[in-house]
Amino acid sequence: MSDSPRWLSATEMRAWRGLLRMHDVLVHRTGRSLQSEFGLSGTDYTVLAELTRVPDGRLRMVELARTLGWEKSRLSHHVARMAKRGLVEREECTDDRRGAYVAVTWEGREAITAAAPRHVEDVRALFLDHLTPGQITLLAEMTDLVLEKLRTDD
Amino acid sequence: MSDSPRWLSATEMRAWRGLLRMHDVLVHRTGRSLQSEFGLSGTDYTVLAELTRVPDGRLRMVELARTLGWEKSRLSHHVARMAKRGLVEREECTDDRRGAYVAVTWEGREAITAAAPRHVEDVRALFLDHLTPGQITLLAEMTDLVLEKLRTDD
Repeated sequence: MSDSPRWLSATEMRAWRGLLRMHDVLVHRTGRSLQSEFGLSGTDYTVLAELTRVPDGRLRMVELARTLGWEKSRLSHHVARMAKRGLVEREECTDDRRGAYVAVTWEGREAITAAAPRHVEDVRALFLDHLTPGQITLLAEMTDLVLEKLRTDD
Repeated sequence: MSDSPRWLSATEMRAWRGLLRMHDVLVHRTGRSLQSEFGLSGTDYTVLAELTRVPDGRLRMVELARTLGWEKSRLSHHVARMAKRGLVEREECTDDRRGAYVAVTWEGREAITAAAPRHVEDVRALFLDHLTPGQITLLAEMTDLVLEKLRTDD
């Protein structure tokens, strides 16, 4: 790092700061109704959404952490809190080195089913409705591309 | 909410999930070197970056919370932790109803100055280098637009 840093241009800075801020504002705003009306945090919702997308409603902890882009310790703590509330169950597998599973419970399915219609409306009203279909497609492509690059790098 | 929910299309889902995941992976990955090499979390860096952007190095707590898109309680807790480590100072103003300020300290300036070159390289290598200048501009425009809409709505 002896060369002088390649500082961000004004547009690069707007894109990077914009990404961080837009994410934080959207997570905060969509989280409000999840919390007040359904007693779920945005993070609870995200975990339940990933688990209910897969056939058995269960994923390996390591796999879920990778999908979400979370550190394993963050996921472990969060899953432990959700398990206490009966939303998920942790399934240990002592004979398998690839580690524990986490599975959605019946209560977890009920919770996300109740919250989903309102949450989807919020995601539309706060975010997608402000963008054109072309912008949404570009964002989908951009995030797929970056995530793919990061996966191959890691 | 008696009408059936307008569920997200596959592309809308890719854009929304992609935004959440890309954010989380990038924050996690850029946070690693901040933490291990400079003892700063990504959140510390973000707060210091906002404070060192303004002439006096100080902002009202409410203003900073709005800029970052954070809840006031989240910012208060985080600022309290940073103040303990000497990175920022909280300045109360009892005669002013608009509330307390937070200011970067000399140590805070040193910390971000030390970390910035590496952090900017990480943001490039993990994120910006994967995108074309056109995509970066589009992302900047998109995030500006959404943040502006959310500001007017609130």
